[in-house]
Formats: sequence, C-alpha cells, structure tokens
Amino acid sequence: MIEDLYFEDFTLGRVFVTAGVTLTEAAIVDFAFQYDPQPFHLDREAAQHSIFGGLVASGFQTQCLSFRMFAQLGTLRNNLGGPGIDAIRWPRPVHAGDTIHCRVTVGEQRASRSKPDRGTIRWDFETLNQRDEVVMTASFISFMRRRET
Amino acid sequence: MIEDLYFEDFTLGRVFVTAGVTLTEAAIVDFAFQYDPQPFHLDREAAQHSIFGGLVASGFQTQCLSFRMFAQLGTLRNNLGGPGIDAIRWPRPVHAGDTIHCRVTVGEQRASRSKPDRGTIRWDFETLNQRDEVVMTASFISFMRRRET
Repeated sequence: MIEDLYFEDFTLGRVFVTAGVTLTEAAIVDFAFQYDPQPFHLDREAAQHSIFGGLVASGFQTQCLSFRMFAQLGTLRNNLGGPGIDAIRWPRPVHAGDTIHCRVTVGEQRASRSKPDRGTIRWDFETLNQRDEVVMTASFISFMRRRET
Repeated sequence: MIEDLYFEDFTLGRVFVTAGVTLTEAAIVDFAFQYDPQPFHLDREAAQHSIFGGLVASGFQTQCLSFRMFAQLGTLRNNLGGPGIDAIRWPRPVHAGDTIHCRVTVGEQRASRSKPDRGTIRWDFETLNQRDEVVMTASFISFMRRRET
C-alpha cells in the first residue's frame, strides 16, 4: 500500500508496478464460462486445435485482473469513477500457468475546467507475463479527486 | 440461436439484438470484489455517499456481460480470436436491479490480404438499460473465419 494519492500526485510519467497473479487453468475456464464462452477459453481439447494451440485466458480476464492488481496498490482511493477505456490490445495470449503483472504509467493529467474538485488521469497499462512480454496494453481513464486546498 | 455465421455473413450495418440480464446487488458486489474493488461497486453504504448515490456495477461487468450475451446468440462460432477493443465508454451508471441488453451493429467488414481464410469484423456495441438509455458503447474487433469456397 502507498500513501493516500490525489490528482496532484499523478504527475505525467509517474510509473506504478503491481504485484503479479498466476492464471490457473481453473480460473481461466471459470471466468470464460461466465463472460467469454468460446472454445479456446473453455475447453482444453478444443483449444489444442485452435490457433492458440492450448487454453488461453479471455482478454477480458487479463483486463479485469490488471485493473484489480492496480487498485490493490491503493492508487484509486480518491477515484470518483471512470468514463471509459481507450484502445485495449492483446498482442500475445495468456496461457494457463502464466503469471502476469502490470506497469502503469500516467499518460495524461488534466485538471477539470468546470469542476475544481477533480481532474482526469489517463493510466497507460502494460500487462506483462513472466518473460516480460507484453500481453495487454490499454488506457484507462479516471476522474480523480484533488487535494483540498 | 442462429445459423452458423461466417465473415461473409457480417455485412456492414447488420444488427444483432441480444437477450437481457438483470444485475442483482449480489452479482454486482461479487464481481467488484474480484475485479474492481472500489467502494461504489462494493459497499452499499459508502456508495450512497458517492457521486452515484447508490451501488453501481463495475463498467467491466457491463462489458463482460455484454459480450457474453452477444456470444450467447451463437454469433461467434467462427471467431478465431480478438486483437482488442476500441473506445469503451460508460455514459450512464448501471444500478442494482437494472436490466441490460445489447444492440450490436457490424461497423467494419474487411477481408485479410495476407490470410485468405479470415477477415476482420468490428462490432459496435450499444448496451441499453430497461429505459433504453445507453449505458455502454464499445467497438470489439474479431478475426472471423471465411466460408470455405
């Protein structure tokens, strides 16, 4: 955990590195069964005949776990909500047994003109596997509370 | 369910409408606890004092359920995988008890130049609540198999 962070603390280029999580086969299949029921995420046998050559995690699972790992750092205590995400890309699959973590860089810090209590932060995520290969990039947008003056 | 659909069937402007799902308070809290642990998604009391005025679903949950409802139509049987998503936006919150469904329009249909067995489809999602208000827009990209000739 880190100190209570506000809009002002997320200066352009500041980097946060998260802890990791290992995606077990069970976790991959459970997630896919609820949210992304496609054979290469669900069915070990079918996945072997897919272009992935084996079971791979839903990209949504990589995305959700990435955000969870970031939230777990304590970075979002003053988050007022997020309007969206730009350009999620999964350049490489996440296989069962892979361990992922994130490197998150502040890509934009913009004070609100109309609401003096907040500003917009863009978090540029890179999610990496155990070989430091990029498995996801995405830009999450947040409205962060400013420090009271 | 619909017939087995291939790249060729996803003509520009074709629209698919999904069934709906009701987001219970329990489902919202369970999802948030795993993937988006912020007070306005997790804690009914804290949420009442947030800018949302009550418990709201994680936007990731809206996204994942939207895709699940679309997959459930049988549209993705020839999907080879997805490289990413563009511009997810949540213009309105989803509250506990809301029922959402999707309207999905084919926004792009582009044959691959290098791989004759597939092409790229962009699905433009609009997720709507029970008052037909838009709660999410997003463009999901898929590589779809072509019909064998």
